[in-house]
Amino acid sequence: MTATGTGAATATGGATATGAATAEERAKDDEEGGGGRSDAPPEPRLAALREAMERERLDCVLVPSDDPHLSEYVPTAYMRRGYLTDFHGSAGTALVTLGGAYLWTDSRYFNEAGLCLNADHWQLMRQGVGKVPTINKFLTDLAEEKRKCGLSKPLRVGIDPYVHPASFVKDLTEAFDAATKDFALGEGGDGDEEASEADPANLGEIVTLESNIVDEVWGDERPPVPTSPFRVHPLEYAGESVSDKVAKIRKEMAGKKATMSVFSALDDVAYLLNVRATGDVSTCPVGIGYVTVTNDDVVLYCDPAKLAAEDVRAHLDEACVVHMPYEDAVPAIERHVKASRSHRVWIDKSRANYALCDVVPESRLVDAQNAVTPMKACKNDAEMEGMRRAHVVDGAAMANFMAWLERTVVDEGRSVSEVEVDKKLTGFRAEQPGFVELSFPTIAGVGPNGAIIHYSAKEGTDLLKSLDTTQPILIDSGGQYTYGTTDVTRTWHFGEPTEQFVEMYTRVLKGNIGVDTMVFPVNTPGFVLDVFARKSLWDGGKDYGHGTGHGVGAALNVHEGPMSISPRWGNKEVMKKGMVVSNEPGYYEDGNYGIRIENLLEVAHVDPTDDICEEEGREKPPGQKTFLRFDKLTMIPIQKNLINVKMLSDEELDWLDSYHSEVLEKVSPLLEEGSEAMAWLKKSCEKIHRS
Amino acid sequence: MTATGTGAATATGGATATGAATAEERAKDDEEGGGGRSDAPPEPRLAALREAMERERLDCVLVPSDDPHLSEYVPTAYMRRGYLTDFHGSAGTALVTLGGAYLWTDSRYFNEAGLCLNADHWQLMRQGVGKVPTINKFLTDLAEEKRKCGLSKPLRVGIDPYVHPASFVKDLTEAFDAATKDFALGEGGDGDEEASEADPANLGEIVTLESNIVDEVWGDERPPVPTSPFRVHPLEYAGESVSDKVAKIRKEMAGKKATMSVFSALDDVAYLLNVRATGDVSTCPVGIGYVTVTNDDVVLYCDPAKLAAEDVRAHLDEACVVHMPYEDAVPAIERHVKASRSHRVWIDKSRANYALCDVVPESRLVDAQNAVTPMKACKNDAEMEGMRRAHVVDGAAMANFMAWLERTVVDEGRSVSEVEVDKKLTGFRAEQPGFVELSFPTIAGVGPNGAIIHYSAKEGTDLLKSLDTTQPILIDSGGQYTYGTTDVTRTWHFGEPTEQFVEMYTRVLKGNIGVDTMVFPVNTPGFVLDVFARKSLWDGGKDYGHGTGHGVGAALNVHEGPMSISPRWGNKEVMKKGMVVSNEPGYYEDGNYGIRIENLLEVAHVDPTDDICEEEGREKPPGQKTFLRFDKLTMIPIQKNLINVKMLSDEELDWLDSYHSEVLEKVSPLLEEGSEAMAWLKKSCEKIHRS
Repeated sequence: MTATGTGAATATGGATATGAATAEERAKDDEEGGGGRSDAPPEPRLAALREAMERERLDCVLVPSDDPHLSEYVPTAYMRRGYLTDFHGSAGTALVTLGGAYLWTDSRYFNEAGLCLNADHWQLMRQGVGKVPTINKFLTDLAEEKRKCGLSKPLRVGIDPYVHPASFVKDLTEAFDAATKDFALGEGGDGDEEASEADPANLGEIVTLESNIVDEVWGDERPPVPTSPFRVHPLEYAGESVSDKVAKIRKEMAGKKATMSVFSALDDVAYLLNVRATGDVSTCPVGIGYVTVTNDDVVLYCDPAKLAAEDVRAHLDEACVVHMPYEDAVPAIERHVKASRSHRVWIDKSRANYALCDVVPESRLVDAQNAVTPMKACKNDAEMEGMRRAHVVDGAAMANFMAWLERTVVDEGRSVSEVEVDKKLTGFRAEQPGFVELSFPTIAGVGPNGAIIHYSAKEGTDLLKSLDTTQPILIDSGGQYTYGTTDVTRTWHFGEPTEQFVEMYTRVLKGNIGVDTMVFPVNTPGFVLDVFARKSLWDGGKDYGHGTGHGVGAALNVHEGPMSISPRWGNKEVMKKGMVVSNEPGYYEDGNYGIRIENLLEVAHVDPTDDICEEEGREKPPGQKTFLRFDKLTMIPIQKNLINVKMLSDEELDWLDSYHSEVLEKVSPLLEEGSEAMAWLKKSCEKIHRS
Repeated sequence: MTATGTGAATATGGATATGAATAEERAKDDEEGGGGRSDAPPEPRLAALREAMERERLDCVLVPSDDPHLSEYVPTAYMRRGYLTDFHGSAGTALVTLGGAYLWTDSRYFNEAGLCLNADHWQLMRQGVGKVPTINKFLTDLAEEKRKCGLSKPLRVGIDPYVHPASFVKDLTEAFDAATKDFALGEGGDGDEEASEADPANLGEIVTLESNIVDEVWGDERPPVPTSPFRVHPLEYAGESVSDKVAKIRKEMAGKKATMSVFSALDDVAYLLNVRATGDVSTCPVGIGYVTVTNDDVVLYCDPAKLAAEDVRAHLDEACVVHMPYEDAVPAIERHVKASRSHRVWIDKSRANYALCDVVPESRLVDAQNAVTPMKACKNDAEMEGMRRAHVVDGAAMANFMAWLERTVVDEGRSVSEVEVDKKLTGFRAEQPGFVELSFPTIAGVGPNGAIIHYSAKEGTDLLKSLDTTQPILIDSGGQYTYGTTDVTRTWHFGEPTEQFVEMYTRVLKGNIGVDTMVFPVNTPGFVLDVFARKSLWDGGKDYGHGTGHGVGAALNVHEGPMSISPRWGNKEVMKKGMVVSNEPGYYEDGNYGIRIENLLEVAHVDPTDDICEEEGREKPPGQKTFLRFDKLTMIPIQKNLINVKMLSDEELDWLDSYHSEVLEKVSPLLEEGSEAMAWLKKSCEKIHRS
């Protein structure tokens, strides 16, 4: 499954707007209607929100999509932006002023958001398009205009400190500071040499609200925060005890002179405590909670209902993990800070909400990647064993499914809807041992729907299509098994593809092989490898708009940091032995088709003696480098008759044959001899005709 | 010619030292002797310097290699570090305390510096090695120790503000600030809850000296600052008038709200004013001076002797460039700042000395890449024509030289010393029309000397070797012509290379072809391409320690920013049409041999209609990307019998044949029919045997 697009501007990016019109007027000019049309009947949610804003003397309120753990997938209770705007896409931030209402989202969602928003009241702000300002630019412009109107008080921007990353608040604060300076300079520039040099009053003020102001409006309709119970993630799969993980964290804390570490990302919490949960966050096996580690204790802050299971309580007791109420996390951090002037708290500001950080003075806060992140990213032997098993099992499920699909579409000549594809595939996965749920919502797109990167087929929609032999289908799917997580994409075509389709399929495949076969020294950032996925497409003057690879958790989130293989040059995380990453180049023709070939890969040493050196902490002789390579996890054939063999080198053809022979060897023992799945797998894994 | 190594830690990097010993004691422990041995007889230069330091109440003085223009090659008058330490390598910074003396340099110079320094008085600080602290870390440690000794006054560090980049002073200031905070925290951490929360006195203070303190010691022995006259760089080669360049700069200044632009890099000055000079800086056709541009004037600050030529004065007059004394640059900037509160000065702090920036308040300084940098990097048609011509001419010189070398070594069986190689090659270049001087000191290294990246052969040294048929030679050389600048590396072997040498030569060649044949979209940073130069070496578990490509000036400096092709991920400059870059993968076996294959390349549009679109400012239809490719400038054959053809693909073999046919076509018209050079060229450009 692809991670976020590569080129999409973030809300805090750098687009600018100029001209004499106010920020709000300009926004209206850019769009049809929206943003608070004066002749529209009142919108009850916005009206109630504005009433609360006036009580709090706020000029505007920010409503993001985030939960307090900054999760990628968010429980419904935290979908405040969705509730307020009716737009439920994964990315988007609403800004409500007393006179207008704005939604920023990225190019993936322009279409959907345009359909969902009530244009009488809402203005769509298309991030990264032409003159559309970023949220920060929009806010600083608003603040300048307020000042220009002679109002000396700063623009008051209300936020719920629990649902913004601390880094966002820092960026906005800096934007207000810079705008204030610039504004003062502009005033001074009018020739008034005598004007005071004293610091001008700030143009903007971020007001952290005691409770979420949208919840007041949502009232009893708001769904409860989920309280699914934790289950123990057995040592057999986790590979390392909680005590050992805590010991490692404490060692890192000593190095950083930190006396407390705060973990707020839900996969960090689940990984650290060797627990999992189902239901809190759909497709992510995590439960809502925070953890703090000091030299004296490990505390889990969560709803008591999450500890309902006896074995979970025993498991946490054994690791000396203490339980406290969920709401006590921030006060506990504050108490720790106040207990001694030598106490220092380690929080990764880019991955923690502002409320957690706000109680720690800047000089006492260690803002760095937390100690769990690198541990979690580099899978240990037990975790990797589970991941390998999950992928073989997943290969068997896919063979069963593909045999059914091909028979149904080709032999029986029946069209199969994208929704049926999803259901049937999920059904085959569910038959496998240890299956828990999907690892993300299946993307099954026939023809043009394959070109919609995060497409989700829904019954009864205009977009829904059915698969027959005239069009290809892109299927991106994965499973959560108790022992591992999978994620695979293939594009299939049961009819006669066009020559152009075959050319592009082959270029995508060459890109996949390009990354798969790379050998590279340690300390190589992921982005260095990205270009090999694109080389063949670039040669043909084409490209794709998403990254090539994301990290994947071990029986954990399908998107896991810190590394990626993508043209986000800012992510300098290097590839390390034990990491699991996706390799998913693609090519998309809007309105026509989508191609993506995705395998998960594990990072391994080229020279196995490096494993021993690493374990024993021995250093290489000077001048000698350790090299890394990829091993394939995904065990699912690549459709051979979509390939132009003339475009592949002998080495690339060998690669394909060797992969198919590995797939056959590993997956066939899980299939019944003589079954249609076995027949499909054998046929699919035959050597490719080289002419 | 390779740019600086990829992995070398900079002086401001992050190594740390720990333990109870003082910074100076630790430094002595790490090394044999040095740093101020108490029983050594006094060193007169250091003694005189310390006398001056005591007068200025300084604890230490920094003596870098830089001139006021932060040039790569420095006039002797500015080689203060060389004078003081006897070490004359291009990189190194000296620090003298009242009791010790230290020289930091990088791995290229460990050997040379070790031999040059007087170990009784100097301590070599090997940057990037083990526990060796950076200069900043060393200074903050010293400052902490001073405070711990109960001295409340800060450590006073003397600098000449003209020879440090403004960014260095900023970094050191921040290092002192951070250390001061940390130190106060450490004090507070001892349990003294009542200690004052007030800002602690800073541990360190940077003292900007009125005049250079080393020059006091150097006295009359110091060579004068050179005053070579400027010559006009004709419009025929420059392609754009000074007035047009100034107009573009003023447009950029308006966008940045800057009222003055300061240009201090000597190639910026030469480019902007369409002048060149020979003699101020060896191998660089530039003259010493600053330029400021405001909306009212363009001022050149330089020694009047530089304007001795009538035509230069007329040329500058025509462009309304005013002359002022060299020493007036800083006062002029200060006057401009004070003239109006709306005045803002644009200086690139990373490329300008601290004295220029120090007179501009932070809020009035626009710190960004200056407007000349991108103009200079993207060559116009006239500049590119000159560059192409220079490379064909250079190819003819090299054919003459190689024919002579092969005859001498192979046919006559004579050994040719590296120094003779340099002289002879320079002689053949000097015969070409418009030749001015070399573009950098020739690197000619036989056998193991080829593995010394910045080797310079010198008569009478132990290292000097002679070429015969038993060993390879690496020759990296280039010329300054009035119309263009060249830079090329080849490794030659006139005997029987080993199989391993041939394998590595072939891998290096594959790397060169890998970069050369890349097609990539606009907005691709140079570092994205670097990995294609390394891929074949990585496949074999090998690598090289320098970057792959640097920018090259048009009849200007051989190393020119801002772009590079290298694993310096911090340099996000993207490749653009009209840039000229080197492509020079290599492989080095210490004590054995060096291989490097370097061509200069120009960046061009894949689709020539993009040239028209660009000229007319038309945008592409949405979704369509503009792609770039490289054209070869260097016209010098690659030795075919060093290649293992089995390791090259058909496409790579085609590439070689096609390159050689282009070389023959372009260079042969400059050679005499029937000459030995022509025979050498024809033979060298024959198609390669494919089996």
